[in-house]
Amino acid sequence: MKTNLQPAGTPDLERYLRERASIVEHALAENVADSDGPAGRLFQAMRYSLLAGGKRLRPVLALAACEAVGGSPDVAIGFACAIEMIHTYSLIHDDLPCMDDDDLRRGRPTNHKVYGEAIATLAGDGLLTDAFAVLARSALGPKARVPSQVALETIAELAEAAGSAGMVGGQVIDLLGEGRAMELRELEYLHRKKTGALFIAAVCGGARIGGADHSQLEVLREYAEALGLAFQVVDDLLDVEESVEKMGKRTHKDEARGKATYPSLLGVDRSWELARELSHRALDALAGFGDRADPLRMLATFSVERKL
Amino acid sequence: MKTNLQPAGTPDLERYLRERASIVEHALAENVADSDGPAGRLFQAMRYSLLAGGKRLRPVLALAACEAVGGSPDVAIGFACAIEMIHTYSLIHDDLPCMDDDDLRRGRPTNHKVYGEAIATLAGDGLLTDAFAVLARSALGPKARVPSQVALETIAELAEAAGSAGMVGGQVIDLLGEGRAMELRELEYLHRKKTGALFIAAVCGGARIGGADHSQLEVLREYAEALGLAFQVVDDLLDVEESVEKMGKRTHKDEARGKATYPSLLGVDRSWELARELSHRALDALAGFGDRADPLRMLATFSVERKL
Repeated sequence: MKTNLQPAGTPDLERYLRERASIVEHALAENVADSDGPAGRLFQAMRYSLLAGGKRLRPVLALAACEAVGGSPDVAIGFACAIEMIHTYSLIHDDLPCMDDDDLRRGRPTNHKVYGEAIATLAGDGLLTDAFAVLARSALGPKARVPSQVALETIAELAEAAGSAGMVGGQVIDLLGEGRAMELRELEYLHRKKTGALFIAAVCGGARIGGADHSQLEVLREYAEALGLAFQVVDDLLDVEESVEKMGKRTHKDEARGKATYPSLLGVDRSWELARELSHRALDALAGFGDRADPLRMLATFSVERKL
Repeated sequence: MKTNLQPAGTPDLERYLRERASIVEHALAENVADSDGPAGRLFQAMRYSLLAGGKRLRPVLALAACEAVGGSPDVAIGFACAIEMIHTYSLIHDDLPCMDDDDLRRGRPTNHKVYGEAIATLAGDGLLTDAFAVLARSALGPKARVPSQVALETIAELAEAAGSAGMVGGQVIDLLGEGRAMELRELEYLHRKKTGALFIAAVCGGARIGGADHSQLEVLREYAEALGLAFQVVDDLLDVEESVEKMGKRTHKDEARGKATYPSLLGVDRSWELARELSHRALDALAGFGDRADPLRMLATFSVERKL
């Protein structure tokens, strides 16, 4: 796979995010091929959601974490793709009529609106399964630069973060909790599983592939945990404050469904305050890292200052 | 994981299958824990389908293939569990209303009939994702006996067999082909993907973990390919010939849906003949193996002689 990754230079966040997102976008397009064979519609559906733009925050975090510990970010491209494929599958399945029943995602009709429920379910299944093939293959073959043992540990952690003990479990808690009063503690538990686990897997996996030692992984886990929660608090706030046009997905939907959110439990002002505190906590965790962690620092700032 | 696997002894097929299936059953119950936490319903749903009995043919094939090349079958238990978890997820998703819309499986209501569509979808997602964690973890840690490189190759092949290029792609072709005339060549292509790929992954993965060399893997691939097709031809025949009560799932459904099947294209007699030819082809592939391949030989016979 040809990539052209320069070490992170000036802290120009927007340019950095755009460049890295574009590298991820190209690698994703290579990894999920177009096909006009008998199952062509499946590949179209997978690519429809996978190549729909989006912030690419999780894969960009993975590359930045790899770089923060002195790794070359292009070694982590396969892992970054796997993370985004898993994130995309989770969006497709969450949008299904039997789940959140959403019509709009990233400014376009959701997958099942275009391809029907059966193909959308299978597109999600395909992306999830293929993610593990992409990740395992990236550590195999004569040109592989990730030690097998490291790749295996990364696969185990990613599967645990995405599976029943992590993201899938979080989605169940979210579904069962709809319309029910929830305490702040429960809400945090939900988000740790539903979004936090994959953030941690992205950061720690990228760092592991970059050669992180045990103590670096510990610190980066703290960073990712705080960042993931900050991101979720801001997601809840944007759902309250922004319009459908701007967000490219249905807004005010948490309220309509009687879902507990940070603003509903803490109020808007206190929620913004919490998001900033979490972002600072993420920055503090990086105190022992040098300039190479600047992209991670920028991303901690971005998680709170973003407008979509 | 404690297991008590004896080398295959007398060719007493029924006892062998029952013993091995029971070992797999115990390992599955250990790997997918019960939980009364907030996501408890997810784990119940996963276990409802995973521990519902069934022939356990794919994991038993994996253990038998490991043994055929001189490996100790208990080394392949993690892999065998992963195969069965992936098979089970595919049944749960295939039964969903948006797919085959089936009410009965293994003599019990299907997962979504008991837990609802949302939880059933997520139970499938959880089993699929957790399968890769179970497989990767089985090759990690101080007690692991599978080399990392071998485990990685097994993961890559399993994900490719189960993903868009394999099983998921096959299910799409099956769905899109319903009610449409299909030639024998197309039907075979469909089954190579929908069921064949996972049979090959089960046999070759088990053998790889058992220490198979390249030429052994080639031959075992031929065995698994013939066995997988034989199994499918017999599945089609049993759907025509047997009752719901006996099969524990809806029968005559292929006909009702206008699905192409072997009996519909070849007639019942020629289909039985084809199944026996395929079973012999599988047996012939094993000619170079000694007694250690007897379980694989028994399974080739079983694939045609079974009554459910």
